[in-house]
Amino acid sequence: MKPFFQLQSTSSKARAGLIQTTRGEIPTPQFMPVGTRGAVKSLTTEDVESLNPPIILGNTYHLYLRPGHHLIESLGGLHRFMDWKKPILTDSGGFQVFSLSDLNQVTENGVHFRSHIDGSKHFMTPELSMEIQRSLGSDIVMCFDECPALPADDQTLEASLKRTHAWARRCRDYPLADHQFLFGIVQGGLNLHLRLESLSQLNAMDFSGLAIGGLSVGEKNEQMQQLLADFTPHMPENKPRYLMGVGKPLDILNAIACGVDLFDCVLPTRNARNGGVFTAKGPINIKNERFKTDLRPLDPDCSCRVCARHSRAYLNHLFKVGEYTAAQLMTYHNLDFFLSLTRRARESILSDRFDEFYRSFYKEYTGKSEEE
Amino acid sequence: MKPFFQLQSTSSKARAGLIQTTRGEIPTPQFMPVGTRGAVKSLTTEDVESLNPPIILGNTYHLYLRPGHHLIESLGGLHRFMDWKKPILTDSGGFQVFSLSDLNQVTENGVHFRSHIDGSKHFMTPELSMEIQRSLGSDIVMCFDECPALPADDQTLEASLKRTHAWARRCRDYPLADHQFLFGIVQGGLNLHLRLESLSQLNAMDFSGLAIGGLSVGEKNEQMQQLLADFTPHMPENKPRYLMGVGKPLDILNAIACGVDLFDCVLPTRNARNGGVFTAKGPINIKNERFKTDLRPLDPDCSCRVCARHSRAYLNHLFKVGEYTAAQLMTYHNLDFFLSLTRRARESILSDRFDEFYRSFYKEYTGKSEEE
Repeated sequence: MKPFFQLQSTSSKARAGLIQTTRGEIPTPQFMPVGTRGAVKSLTTEDVESLNPPIILGNTYHLYLRPGHHLIESLGGLHRFMDWKKPILTDSGGFQVFSLSDLNQVTENGVHFRSHIDGSKHFMTPELSMEIQRSLGSDIVMCFDECPALPADDQTLEASLKRTHAWARRCRDYPLADHQFLFGIVQGGLNLHLRLESLSQLNAMDFSGLAIGGLSVGEKNEQMQQLLADFTPHMPENKPRYLMGVGKPLDILNAIACGVDLFDCVLPTRNARNGGVFTAKGPINIKNERFKTDLRPLDPDCSCRVCARHSRAYLNHLFKVGEYTAAQLMTYHNLDFFLSLTRRARESILSDRFDEFYRSFYKEYTGKSEEE
Repeated sequence: MKPFFQLQSTSSKARAGLIQTTRGEIPTPQFMPVGTRGAVKSLTTEDVESLNPPIILGNTYHLYLRPGHHLIESLGGLHRFMDWKKPILTDSGGFQVFSLSDLNQVTENGVHFRSHIDGSKHFMTPELSMEIQRSLGSDIVMCFDECPALPADDQTLEASLKRTHAWARRCRDYPLADHQFLFGIVQGGLNLHLRLESLSQLNAMDFSGLAIGGLSVGEKNEQMQQLLADFTPHMPENKPRYLMGVGKPLDILNAIACGVDLFDCVLPTRNARNGGVFTAKGPINIKNERFKTDLRPLDPDCSCRVCARHSRAYLNHLFKVGEYTAAQLMTYHNLDFFLSLTRRARESILSDRFDEFYRSFYKEYTGKSEEE
């Protein structure tokens, strides 16, 4: 039997690997499109298939509230519900319980919260998070963790960390389905000492993979970069490393340079709906008047099916008049951009040219070299 | 050279024909999806291509206001703008000037109106309508006509009709591009005498096709049916007959039975965005609670790509949580339903089984035979 994770190659500190699930392989580094509520926003399953990501993400919190995990389970699970045949990673609901819901109150046993939709009362526990993710039938399951907002003092972080570890143990002890792999989530904010303590605790629980949680939640970008540079080398080599909720293209590039393997972020899908386009030469907003007569594709360096046939002028028009079609086309391109970023990074690692790729991507994206 | 329109077959009074344009053939009877503002709402050009309609419709009024016909012309015309390679029919803007805009004032020369978007003042004339449609580069161009709301008294209708005929002559005298074919629009409300008078005037101008305008604008359904049954037999055999803005599946079926060839309507696209699904057994609304656990496709008798893979339960969920994806999937199915209706009608006419098709479609759609 193939191992769950196989490290295939390194280039500087960047890693190329292969994750094995019963629903298919996931080459890393890899970006995972976010399919919050059973759909990648603005796209159909057919559109997503055409983008060909090896894995997508689903949100436990949202699917628990609507349509409910029991319903999805009774209909054959999340894969069948959205007719997506490749792997799905579900988050634990932790981040949303803390960021989206009202009146959350944390106890040792779990979190009391009110739905952001109808105000109904709920109590999320590590066991309920596992139950939901088992019902959804995802291939990679995330531990239920506490996500304190940054900045936070060390005392707050330590107490939160203690709970996160106790909850991780309860998640680990919950019986998942045979095809499901459980990831632990390292917390500890920007404090390297706490991060290493968290890592040590989770290592002892022997999860299939490790996530770095609690970043990109209010701290400065340089602080996140520093923490990643300091912390990542301590992570076990033989397990996939997932940086949750990150990020902008350069954040992803920098994290790959630190040896991170997996990413997810709503930026490509969310920005698309607001006119934001990612291009090799940096982000633009298609609603800008200067694109009104621009016959070039969204990104002249892109070969996705949107760039192959539609002009900036057309997208500018569709946005101005408010056609849904605009969000669909823009989302498709943006996701292609993120998937292409991790795919090209992987190719450069496999041929040991990652530093070269890094420099060239950085230079083109920012219009300057990274030393400036 | 092939003629613009060729009558291929009849079955009872229903007709099968073939329209020839430089951008492709249009088999009739045919339903034309509405692409108001350079996109069929909720779909990409690629989605529309996959539905394979031989012609789509664009709206002169909307494209004139945004982004403007000069801009579209400078970008290579409407086909290139939306990257649609098959024929496009543009309406004249008449209907929208009368139904959407504010403060319209009719003179012999044209119509003063204010934009429904920003209140700006405009003056639409037959010549401007032709100029816009020439700039857009559509394959079938419609005459600029006056659309009086029904009910209207005979005096109002007669005055309006006189203007419509004068305007039709001015449209006919306007130099269009070589590939463009101009259709005249018969008006006259529910008054057969006025309709025949209008037809006679337009026949003398020798248009490439004739449209029946001013129906489905407030009159009773039976009144429209009666007018069509009485009027259509008087139309020339050798020209395509286009019933503008109609309609529900049974309206289209009945009009085909009267010998009408072309249809357009926003129902399949608009209803899709509100949860309305057309099925062989009649319309349903997918938001209904009873579909929450329904694993059947939107229409169990449909073989479109949405029905091939997605359940009513999934669509019910997508609608409830407000995902754009729902509109896209529903629009696709509904358009497939309308296109399939005219395609099947055509096949039945070619094999002289139209009455049989009519009875069987009617019976299944209404749950009863049409004699009941």
